Amino acid sequence: MNVEIVNTGSELMLGRVLNTHQQWLCRRLADLGHVVTRQVAVADTGNEIQNAVREALARAELVITTGGLGPTSDDITRELIAQLLGRKLVHSAQVQAHIEAFFAKRGRPRPNMTDVETFVPEGSLVFLNQTGTAPGLAIQVAPAGNQAGELSKEENRKQAESAQDRNLRTSSAKQWLIMLPGPPRELRPMFDDAVVPLLRREFAKEIFVCRTLRSTGIGESRVQEMIEADVAPFVKQGLQVGYCARPGAVDVRLVADGAPAPQLVQAATAAVELALSPNIYGYDDDEIEAVVVRLLTEQKKSLALAESCTGGNIGHRITNVPGASTVFFGGVTSYANSAKEHLLGVRRETLLKHGAVSEPVAREMAAGAREKFQSDFALAVTGIAGPDGGTPEKPVGTVFIALATADGVTVESRLNPWDRITFKDVTATQALELLRRRLL
Amino acid sequence: MNVEIVNTGSELMLGRVLNTHQQWLCRRLADLGHVVTRQVAVADTGNEIQNAVREALARAELVITTGGLGPTSDDITRELIAQLLGRKLVHSAQVQAHIEAFFAKRGRPRPNMTDVETFVPEGSLVFLNQTGTAPGLAIQVAPAGNQAGELSKEENRKQAESAQDRNLRTSSAKQWLIMLPGPPRELRPMFDDAVVPLLRREFAKEIFVCRTLRSTGIGESRVQEMIEADVAPFVKQGLQVGYCARPGAVDVRLVADGAPAPQLVQAATAAVELALSPNIYGYDDDEIEAVVVRLLTEQKKSLALAESCTGGNIGHRITNVPGASTVFFGGVTSYANSAKEHLLGVRRETLLKHGAVSEPVAREMAAGAREKFQSDFALAVTGIAGPDGGTPEKPVGTVFIALATADGVTVESRLNPWDRITFKDVTATQALELLRRRLL
Repeated sequence: MNVEIVNTGSELMLGRVLNTHQQWLCRRLADLGHVVTRQVAVADTGNEIQNAVREALARAELVITTGGLGPTSDDITRELIAQLLGRKLVHSAQVQAHIEAFFAKRGRPRPNMTDVETFVPEGSLVFLNQTGTAPGLAIQVAPAGNQAGELSKEENRKQAESAQDRNLRTSSAKQWLIMLPGPPRELRPMFDDAVVPLLRREFAKEIFVCRTLRSTGIGESRVQEMIEADVAPFVKQGLQVGYCARPGAVDVRLVADGAPAPQLVQAATAAVELALSPNIYGYDDDEIEAVVVRLLTEQKKSLALAESCTGGNIGHRITNVPGASTVFFGGVTSYANSAKEHLLGVRRETLLKHGAVSEPVAREMAAGAREKFQSDFALAVTGIAGPDGGTPEKPVGTVFIALATADGVTVESRLNPWDRITFKDVTATQALELLRRRLL
Repeated sequence: MNVEIVNTGSELMLGRVLNTHQQWLCRRLADLGHVVTRQVAVADTGNEIQNAVREALARAELVITTGGLGPTSDDITRELIAQLLGRKLVHSAQVQAHIEAFFAKRGRPRPNMTDVETFVPEGSLVFLNQTGTAPGLAIQVAPAGNQAGELSKEENRKQAESAQDRNLRTSSAKQWLIMLPGPPRELRPMFDDAVVPLLRREFAKEIFVCRTLRSTGIGESRVQEMIEADVAPFVKQGLQVGYCARPGAVDVRLVADGAPAPQLVQAATAAVELALSPNIYGYDDDEIEAVVVRLLTEQKKSLALAESCTGGNIGHRITNVPGASTVFFGGVTSYANSAKEHLLGVRRETLLKHGAVSEPVAREMAAGAREKFQSDFALAVTGIAGPDGGTPEKPVGTVFIALATADGVTVESRLNPWDRITFKDVTATQALELLRRRLL
């Protein structure tokens, strides 16, 4: 089965916005057994959108478009696709009621310009938008050949002819075109709630297994060296191995398809675990902060933070995890030295003698946070994020990471000579990893 | 002039990697006056890559591919494109010397598997890779019609015929195919150092102006209503207006090309500023946190934070800005009530009487942070990020945002009924906006 994605949006072609839909949709579809064969992005102009969708429909059983369903003047996908498929736009009372309710809940009148969102191509399935106004739409472009009971032979013939006129695919297999709104917070729940059930019903699942093992603390080439010999026998049997280096982490991807896939991936997973453990912190979409929150919750332990160079990033990542409030008491972001002194109890003489970026200051920050918040554990980081502030002895990227427990404080030093934002992310990951190891 | 990008890589189609090349290349090319008309991503398989490149060459004067130039078994782009264009792969002594030097510098022998990288399609321009081994390649697929002195008429005719055989574009305009390596840290310097000069030499710069105005505090449809009449006269003259809703913000994009473009965009910018001010916080790539840091720096004022529901996100965003340390003293992330009490001085009776998510607690948090950190300003947020913790009176999404200054404390309440991560981001933006308005 061929699956194609068409992302519409002039902001994409102008490079003003990062296209996150491709990865997200490709990932979700692969998990359902449908690997996307092609992704195309075009501007919000009539010719480009119609050409891209027409070509995709000539190749694929499933075409998903994103964007261009909103109420503003550059939202033209719905109309162009209705035109391409030769379908009229008809008013949907259901959509109108839903949009009225959306604005009523927010105590605002429905803007007239949302009128356009209440018109949908004739015969569409409508997906109401739980987090916005524009509905998603699904159109069965081709019926399921002989299996389709809904259309008479004559209607089938007519539809095929009319499809041919418009240069569309005319094979007898089922074909769906699905249109999703552009904002990720609207598209994602709609895909999970409405599109997944539709795909499960309409298309047979293909056997495809993909397992990602997430490691930290080892570089990409070293990871490959450490597992290469162990996965070689499985590669001979059809396993594909991929590597992906992220800031502070390396993912190992094990992929196979067909009947032997589940067993093959399982055996290879065990081999990689054996070779890389304890550096594997999670699987697939696991974030290290979620793993840490889970371990703390299981062990009924609490955490506090003292962040300097990460500026709040560790707390931000921890509080992205639902339920973090049961284990995370809080933190002090002590950018200024006086904050280290007055809010965390770091001694002035330690600051003067060793400097703010030093092993003893990291140690006192962690101990101070643990005491102030009365938590079981406290993590502290102090370092030089750059681009300025480095010295020959302490270059940009220098960082000290401390973990305070009931048994005392451990401090590790690292050099993370990356750009400012990568530095903050890698340092936060290293701090979380220090705690994760303690919780194993 | 048509420009297309073809991204190759199975990891893209499996959704395991985010394609950042599209945005980066589209942005760079737009800045050179060449707006990308289509971007396509396909897996590392023969058919898909050849089909995508063949189709792109049938439409575009400039085609740029990314990925598939490395030494491993899935790097097949170079060979497939040579085949598609009917060119032999020939050994390049220059590339081999460069790769030898690359490994010599690192004190390692050149792996045999890099042999494949030393073969390039006949007649290619070679871009040596400053941060890796795989060279970039540029091939002039079609000569510049009558202007081209290098080829005889007979050769031109032969090349056109052979192009037709392979289904390529046969117009007389110049046509280039450029292949770049996949890793961003290799692609980006190569594009700037080698591709930009080539494009400047080979293609006339087109006049193209794009200005983005970034607003916050108004929804997307309301933004359009507020500016529609004012920009209408410019739209008649060829201006294109685009809207992009991000969490807590709406971008208005003004685009034009041709000789009148600079003046047209400038006049439209002034009209939009008049209609939306003071909701416009910045232009193009400005982030609101960078604007706030700039204003604080200019006014020599300092900031502290008391974050509850945002968990450190405001501090994280502020400290992403280089130079933040001169104005940002720090913050307390007070997830637990005891932290609000002990670290920020919120009174127990206020917590008991009004609850942690309340106007009086936000007020005391802000005042407490300002006092503890001895800063000019303090921002405080307390709210319910969800998914749990809502009540009928205070549903998920409820948040109180306070700003403490020398003149006292202002508190605003908002309802941000989004998912947890969007909630945190929107709330952080609202807090930063509250401070930005104070600094105008």
